[in-house]
Amino acid sequence: MTFDQWMHASLDRVETALEHYLPGTDIAPAKLHEAMRYAVLGGGKRVRPLLCHAAGELTGASAQALDAGSAALEMIHVYSLVHDDMPAMDDDALRRGKPTVHVQYDEATALLVGDALQSQAFVALTGDNNGLSAAQQAALTRELALASGSVGMAGGQAIDLESVGRKLSRPELETMHRKKTGALLRAAVRMGALCGEAPDAAAMSALDSYAAAIGLAFQVVDDILDVTADSATLGKTAGKDAKDDKPTYVSIIGLDASRELAAQLGRDAHAALAPFGPRAARLGELADLVVNRVN
Amino acid sequence: MTFDQWMHASLDRVETALEHYLPGTDIAPAKLHEAMRYAVLGGGKRVRPLLCHAAGELTGASAQALDAGSAALEMIHVYSLVHDDMPAMDDDALRRGKPTVHVQYDEATALLVGDALQSQAFVALTGDNNGLSAAQQAALTRELALASGSVGMAGGQAIDLESVGRKLSRPELETMHRKKTGALLRAAVRMGALCGEAPDAAAMSALDSYAAAIGLAFQVVDDILDVTADSATLGKTAGKDAKDDKPTYVSIIGLDASRELAAQLGRDAHAALAPFGPRAARLGELADLVVNRVN
Repeated sequence: MTFDQWMHASLDRVETALEHYLPGTDIAPAKLHEAMRYAVLGGGKRVRPLLCHAAGELTGASAQALDAGSAALEMIHVYSLVHDDMPAMDDDALRRGKPTVHVQYDEATALLVGDALQSQAFVALTGDNNGLSAAQQAALTRELALASGSVGMAGGQAIDLESVGRKLSRPELETMHRKKTGALLRAAVRMGALCGEAPDAAAMSALDSYAAAIGLAFQVVDDILDVTADSATLGKTAGKDAKDDKPTYVSIIGLDASRELAAQLGRDAHAALAPFGPRAARLGELADLVVNRVN
Repeated sequence: MTFDQWMHASLDRVETALEHYLPGTDIAPAKLHEAMRYAVLGGGKRVRPLLCHAAGELTGASAQALDAGSAALEMIHVYSLVHDDMPAMDDDALRRGKPTVHVQYDEATALLVGDALQSQAFVALTGDNNGLSAAQQAALTRELALASGSVGMAGGQAIDLESVGRKLSRPELETMHRKKTGALLRAAVRMGALCGEAPDAAAMSALDSYAAAIGLAFQVVDDILDVTADSATLGKTAGKDAKDDKPTYVSIIGLDASRELAAQLGRDAHAALAPFGPRAARLGELADLVVNRVN
């Protein structure tokens, strides 16, 4: 299977899994379920689900188990986007090429959509027939909860809020991104691996190094695209970081050095995968995708 | 031990467990952790933790396991209060006798405090040394996630939002409250029981009947207190339901019938506990507390 074929097959699986794990609009309250589905389905690059599936190939994880893990990861990611786009946070009107949830519905609905998507992620992880043992369900829940919470994603957003209009040093910027986006990307890789035979400490540590590299690369490329791409290509508002006076890699080290940093992080990611040999091919290809993406 | 002694001992345990399971302000981001602790510690009736502890007595649950379960329940409850008080929802300035989180800090912080408290609840349930087996961790996670999400608490809040200014029938009002407050109270009882030897289906069904009765009683009494108590006694704004034109038991069936309904639900709760005999004494006393509370 080529990487493109694998991507398409995986994206299809992820979409089907999200359909399955999101409550239907035939279940009350219909409007809330409709809004949850509006936020999650039919858009997004699904980077975290793809990382989860690719990491699962290393440990012989079942597709069914990876469905639960990747649906949970994407629901957490989308909840964070929905809340982050609200007026009290980034106040953004466009996401994945569509009006944001608080624009399409209202602020109260956006708040509840985010809240309920977070809960639903943990429902997906602990389903009766989701291909995960009780031990795996507990382990994945802990990974996802820690990565989402105050020492992970939500904590990174808090640091982000405090940093607006302030000059961050490069280490401070890295700490923020390691939490804000890095923690959930790392969880995606670790959860995928934990969906199969539990990896040993050395393997887990190699996966952490891989995830750290692509997590940072993801953010550096985000900062590059914010100044080089247009809103139509991004599916969200371009030029927003500079407008909001947010510290970025481009503002701190410049565009050229940011491009070189992204390329170096891509090489770091590949180096971290060396111990796994060809079984890690998909993870390597995903690293290239993260570094070379245009939206 | 008298009920009062048990209450004091249990409340002390709950406060210590919350202290333990909330990240300290020595951990970054300090401001977010301070705000999370502001929201959770030093206030509240701790009804859900008390129900969890009392139900655990039926199944020989360890105090350590109940600490994790009850801390998780209270974190979910407090996250819902923090988000519910925000301007996009109920827009309330007073909670537990203190300024609400968005008033004390700001809206973005309140959003993140709620989000992070929800994650932290699942961190508490899946800790390494929390007295729960992997199977119990997975089971409790599922109970709590379903009770919090779109078919539980968050769903009830969505129905509540849609019902403002609309005349609800009594069955519609009951459906809303069964989700909005009932689901988490039910989870408190079930999770407490699941912290010990897994109860059989008949026992679980009796506990569900008990929880249904006190869940509804809790709401009926809330509606009564909103019109009969003052803000200082309640620790939140009194008279708010009428001001917001919200449907309540008092507005639908009147004050006297609401009082009689609460008393009847108290009797229903006691009846549901009959099969357990004296082991369910604390649950019975908590039912009386819910029916007779003055704030």
